[in-house]
Amino acid sequence: MEKTFAVIMAGGVGARFWPSSRAARPKQLLDLTGSGTTMIAATLARLAPEIPAERVLVVTGRATAVAVRKALPTVPRENILAEPVGRNTAPCIGWAALHARRRDPDAVLAVLPSDHLVRKPEEFHAGLRKAVGAAREGALVTCGIAPDRPETGFGYIELGEPISDGVCRVVRFVEKPDLETAKGYVASGRFAWNSGMFFFSAARVLDEIARQMPELKRGLEEIDAGIAAGDERAVVERVFPKLPAQSIDYGVMERAAGIACVPLDIGWSDLGSWSAAHDLSQRDAAGNAFGADVVAVDARGCLVRAPSDVLVALVGVEDLVVVDTGDCLLVCKKDRAQDVKRVLDILKERGRGDLL
Amino acid sequence: MEKTFAVIMAGGVGARFWPSSRAARPKQLLDLTGSGTTMIAATLARLAPEIPAERVLVVTGRATAVAVRKALPTVPRENILAEPVGRNTAPCIGWAALHARRRDPDAVLAVLPSDHLVRKPEEFHAGLRKAVGAAREGALVTCGIAPDRPETGFGYIELGEPISDGVCRVVRFVEKPDLETAKGYVASGRFAWNSGMFFFSAARVLDEIARQMPELKRGLEEIDAGIAAGDERAVVERVFPKLPAQSIDYGVMERAAGIACVPLDIGWSDLGSWSAAHDLSQRDAAGNAFGADVVAVDARGCLVRAPSDVLVALVGVEDLVVVDTGDCLLVCKKDRAQDVKRVLDILKERGRGDLL
Repeated sequence: MEKTFAVIMAGGVGARFWPSSRAARPKQLLDLTGSGTTMIAATLARLAPEIPAERVLVVTGRATAVAVRKALPTVPRENILAEPVGRNTAPCIGWAALHARRRDPDAVLAVLPSDHLVRKPEEFHAGLRKAVGAAREGALVTCGIAPDRPETGFGYIELGEPISDGVCRVVRFVEKPDLETAKGYVASGRFAWNSGMFFFSAARVLDEIARQMPELKRGLEEIDAGIAAGDERAVVERVFPKLPAQSIDYGVMERAAGIACVPLDIGWSDLGSWSAAHDLSQRDAAGNAFGADVVAVDARGCLVRAPSDVLVALVGVEDLVVVDTGDCLLVCKKDRAQDVKRVLDILKERGRGDLL
Repeated sequence: MEKTFAVIMAGGVGARFWPSSRAARPKQLLDLTGSGTTMIAATLARLAPEIPAERVLVVTGRATAVAVRKALPTVPRENILAEPVGRNTAPCIGWAALHARRRDPDAVLAVLPSDHLVRKPEEFHAGLRKAVGAAREGALVTCGIAPDRPETGFGYIELGEPISDGVCRVVRFVEKPDLETAKGYVASGRFAWNSGMFFFSAARVLDEIARQMPELKRGLEEIDAGIAAGDERAVVERVFPKLPAQSIDYGVMERAAGIACVPLDIGWSDLGSWSAAHDLSQRDAAGNAFGADVVAVDARGCLVRAPSDVLVALVGVEDLVVVDTGDCLLVCKKDRAQDVKRVLDILKERGRGDLL
């Protein structure tokens, strides 16, 4: 796919995977399903047959830039953009679009989260090609995932009539719904989850930003001038904190006309919690997923993560998440995995920022 | 209590407290109830008002002798006897009796386990004085604990008529009963638990050994000659492994005539498992006993032990034992604490003797 650049968004903090995830080691730098590789490296590997590493841009935070570089040794160093502060996805994508446009005025962007799971890579490649094709023709393209449950943690896309094979119009974006609404969406068959993947040409998205987000446009112009002057880092340092913290969804996509959607069936998961990590890990006959040296006596449905030099013994326990990182140990009932965030709140209150 | 010597038996391995207990750090060297001191040091401290450390003999294993010495810095080094191999309690007591008799031909022994809990020290002191008094008059004395449940893990003593204030005859010893029998014992009011504490003069117990355990008698004579010749260590090394591995209960007490019992109400527990350790620890309003830095979100009835530099987070869990020793981590349902032994069996099978 000539002229296509991937933009891997790697600014997330992934607090729901504490204690494995920390400020300096967020979710995308973890192997959450026991695959043997980090999520961001898996994201890159998944792109490899279609987009070479030279055309992969990665936007991450300054605290994680070194770790991202190490996780992605084939990505050229200048392709890794380190934000001084996170300002949500619109500034992140805008900045990457500047770089892509400078390399190729006809650049098309495939914008992808760094920390999602895709279990059907061939279907992903087919969808990628369709979405890039539509983007090359000038569309703003999103990808929809057929919902298998009335999830209230995602935004939804209402799908309209087909435009071409495997591409349809978007009627509207909707924010995270309540449970009743979500059930209606699932039952209707007309709604898809907003997967956070976007496709558009660099020129088109920068045009939309200019039209819909003038403040961001001005900031990006300053940064572009900085790139031209060989002074990018200093300009970004000064400009980035003042950019509006806005998502590309809300800032651009939801208010643009003629959005297209490529519905995908790619075995997708956002891996939102330890519970999801357990569901999507290889499990033994007792439903256990052990990424550690474990002795199990009547243990069922447990996820264990521990350093390789720690022996974990489980006796008579069920549906537990046990994560040992040496300095921290989490023992959590699987159906309470969302409440790991409450642990972080308490640690903040106690002034234990060192453990976040 | 002049002429009284304590014999603290510290040869136990305490496998039920894995991973805190190990071959080189058995139960008596742990602080299981969060008291701030090891069980053996608590045993010594409990004796202090009645028997000075100079008259405390400690019998332990060779692998633990150094640790025992460190735990009991006030006990003279020559009072700590290190068995080359464990041969149960009769050889252990016989050896200690030789030493006590050499120091005082009228020595009376108070033989005590090193790893039991006594929550009423004043009552213990009163009982100790009664038992020593009866032993000084020539009796073989055992101590009985009024049972508060039909425990099948202990031996029982059937109590007979009173001999003097607080001392009664023993009708018979009974081995660990089945549950129905144990229920009958508890209901009858005539049975007490055999606490493993014994009192007798050194001369009397050595006489009984000579009469009932001739093989042990011959071994002890060799050791006594070794002591006299300044060659104790070498003789013990050679003789001890050949001594009959027999308990004082079975080898001497059960077949001797005229045994006395001092029934005790001293807040006693043998602390037989992590579950008992939890029951007997200080607990918060939610029933948690945290000997660690813990963040608890809806946790109830849990025991946690961890190094001071580890943060443990519990989320939505109940009745768990969580023990982190750095190299091992146990997560066990509280009512399954007896099955910790099965973990050790599996570790043996896997050739992980390093973790036992």
